[in-house]
Amino acid sequence: MKTLVALALLIGAVGAWADKPKNIIFVIGDGMGMEYLTAYRHYSDNPATPELDSTWFDQHLLGTVSTHPIDITDVTDSASSATAMAAGVKTYNGAIGVNANREPVETLLERAKKRGYQTAMVATSQINHATPASFSAHVESRNQYDDIADQYLDRRFNGKPWVDILIGGGRKYFEREERNLVHEFQSLGYQYADNFDELNDLTSSPALALLADKGLPFAIDEKPHNRLEVMTQKALELLSPDRPFFLLVEASQIDWCGHANDIACAMAEMTDTEMTLKFISEYVAKRPNTLVVVTADHSTGGLSMGADRQYLWRAEVVRNIQASSGVIAQALIDSGDAWQGRWQELTGIPLNEKAIEVGQNLLGVVANAATTKERNEAVSQLEQAVRHGIDLASVTGWTTGGHTGGDVAVMALGPGAESFAGHQDNTDLAKKLFEVLQ
Amino acid sequence: MKTLVALALLIGAVGAWADKPKNIIFVIGDGMGMEYLTAYRHYSDNPATPELDSTWFDQHLLGTVSTHPIDITDVTDSASSATAMAAGVKTYNGAIGVNANREPVETLLERAKKRGYQTAMVATSQINHATPASFSAHVESRNQYDDIADQYLDRRFNGKPWVDILIGGGRKYFEREERNLVHEFQSLGYQYADNFDELNDLTSSPALALLADKGLPFAIDEKPHNRLEVMTQKALELLSPDRPFFLLVEASQIDWCGHANDIACAMAEMTDTEMTLKFISEYVAKRPNTLVVVTADHSTGGLSMGADRQYLWRAEVVRNIQASSGVIAQALIDSGDAWQGRWQELTGIPLNEKAIEVGQNLLGVVANAATTKERNEAVSQLEQAVRHGIDLASVTGWTTGGHTGGDVAVMALGPGAESFAGHQDNTDLAKKLFEVLQ
Repeated sequence: MKTLVALALLIGAVGAWADKPKNIIFVIGDGMGMEYLTAYRHYSDNPATPELDSTWFDQHLLGTVSTHPIDITDVTDSASSATAMAAGVKTYNGAIGVNANREPVETLLERAKKRGYQTAMVATSQINHATPASFSAHVESRNQYDDIADQYLDRRFNGKPWVDILIGGGRKYFEREERNLVHEFQSLGYQYADNFDELNDLTSSPALALLADKGLPFAIDEKPHNRLEVMTQKALELLSPDRPFFLLVEASQIDWCGHANDIACAMAEMTDTEMTLKFISEYVAKRPNTLVVVTADHSTGGLSMGADRQYLWRAEVVRNIQASSGVIAQALIDSGDAWQGRWQELTGIPLNEKAIEVGQNLLGVVANAATTKERNEAVSQLEQAVRHGIDLASVTGWTTGGHTGGDVAVMALGPGAESFAGHQDNTDLAKKLFEVLQ
Repeated sequence: MKTLVALALLIGAVGAWADKPKNIIFVIGDGMGMEYLTAYRHYSDNPATPELDSTWFDQHLLGTVSTHPIDITDVTDSASSATAMAAGVKTYNGAIGVNANREPVETLLERAKKRGYQTAMVATSQINHATPASFSAHVESRNQYDDIADQYLDRRFNGKPWVDILIGGGRKYFEREERNLVHEFQSLGYQYADNFDELNDLTSSPALALLADKGLPFAIDEKPHNRLEVMTQKALELLSPDRPFFLLVEASQIDWCGHANDIACAMAEMTDTEMTLKFISEYVAKRPNTLVVVTADHSTGGLSMGADRQYLWRAEVVRNIQASSGVIAQALIDSGDAWQGRWQELTGIPLNEKAIEVGQNLLGVVANAATTKERNEAVSQLEQAVRHGIDLASVTGWTTGGHTGGDVAVMALGPGAESFAGHQDNTDLAKKLFEVLQ
């Protein structure tokens, strides 16, 4: 019976793929390597039940994705991997929507636009950061932030910008001394929001929302924590049900927390990401002609559950952390002699004698720093000590402040989801989605 | 057209699952975490072609597997995870074929035996090591090596030992002062081999082959490198085509190389594992009623491709390493003043001034050690320096000498393979295979 049901589902899915989905939602968890998915399962588990609860990722996992750039000796950056996923070509690290010869390559978003789709991008980074940029700009280097923002406005299809709805951070790149792209977007009929209250007020497409100067604050430091979900809800609300759409959603800051080797920060980003995916699932249940593909561009930090020969990972320690390491360090500085109590409040981790000595010393160095440079270095050391304390207590390991080369996961749901089963290259994701857009 | 072919294949596969496979081959790569699969793809790639070649693992990957033991705070050991995969129950670290109450639980191998299957186990560790032991013994601790070996002989079904064919290492546990299990097996009609030449001469089941005192030498240190493939070939040759069989194959030493943080050692074990799987694929092509399931019990070492903020992993460096770190260290000691040339021969890695100084110092400490203890410590430091040199040159990261908690991959082929698609728990692997054996 189970077999028959499975067979019926498979036939249904394959049949629907032949009909092709109408809408595509492509979700990229930047830096969301395999170990992040397992760690998040433990982190998000309800400790009141003995069983380990499965996550959205578990329920929709279909396979794995290789992420190497064109030089297979390299470990990819976000630009190269995003261009691979946006355009189906291997390219060099740093490339935004261009191939190894630095020539522009057509992206999924552009193909969708040409097919009459509505287009939208949502990110918790600046909206002109490497991942979204690779879907709708073409420059030789990811560092050309102003050029990317300019291209969002200046590059046109049928006289209009390629992306109808842009929601994320990045005000400083759009409101510059020599050019105000916000005004220019508004003059083209874009509604504009520059904070979450105003985001609520957006009523129609096209629309631009720039909710921070650069990236948004970390989820762990912001209330409510679900800013990616809120932005994604708004994008889906603004997309008309009358025409198909291509929506790119980037959970940008899993990567940033990974670079900082800040496990609590990363798990809070994963929480927002899962909330976003649960919302998308509900949305898709009502619009079953929508294909959702979820993956990562690479893993970050060389995260491991367990370290230093200990066969343990203490999710409950991570769950109790109240802020990113930067915010915790600043809170300790601001607390003066009361720093030990503040540490307890913010982390729940007991301080042993050695930790007290380290903390006291570092706070002393910060207080007595003679120059801004000295002070910044001392604060950075304090932040590192905060993360070290959390890693020791939770038994979390890291190998790098950069990226690592391992395959990432792919999850999907909706018509055509099964074509992402098994192992594939990141360029294959684009190739399969181009088929939908033919 | 492609869709129709896929659909036909799916229907074929599901139909076959309804018919149930006749034979089961369960392959466990001990410690073979996700990052090992990606690293091996780069390591085994043909550098003469620009594309990165896919591996056997890539071609058959279906999903992922969670590995946590009964206490979800813990990172699993091999015994607990093997018991989960053998019997479908979560248990504590160290448990061999017993549940959390230390009660014996029926294993897949035992169920198969009761159903009239032939049974066989192959491992590159001692054959009474945690993984194979969990399929055919029931003791409270994996350290009860003698008890496990005794159980292989003393526990009976219809008057005969549960396992018809045992091939691996472990002579010292079977030929003990107070008891010679080899003689006892022989008196029950088991053919016996104690080296690879004699293995060739085995002609029929039942059979016992103990090819080393404990574990076999590392693949990287042995010629030919494919001892797992050779042992597996023999097991399949000895299994009669007239009756179904359950064969467990453990690539035991991926884990041991991982514990040592020895990347070249691990990749050589992966090579032997892939050779074994390619042989199994050819075998299965001739016997399509065989289901093959391949997975890992956990990951080891916190391996990462890339480390210390470098976006690189140099597979070619790893490919050039000629021996395990222990053998390299001994070769350097044996070479006296010629050690730098020997290092070059065995690793191909250029020595800079600092490395020469470190090597000279450590070799001096070894030469001048006053006691065996001091010498052993110095040799151990030298081995560590060898691995450190290889890690620096290849940009390989590690977080632990123990295990890590991340999900592992599952690969499968043959009738019923598709039931392993997606994410599942390690206990689910056993539950699905029990269905085959009903």
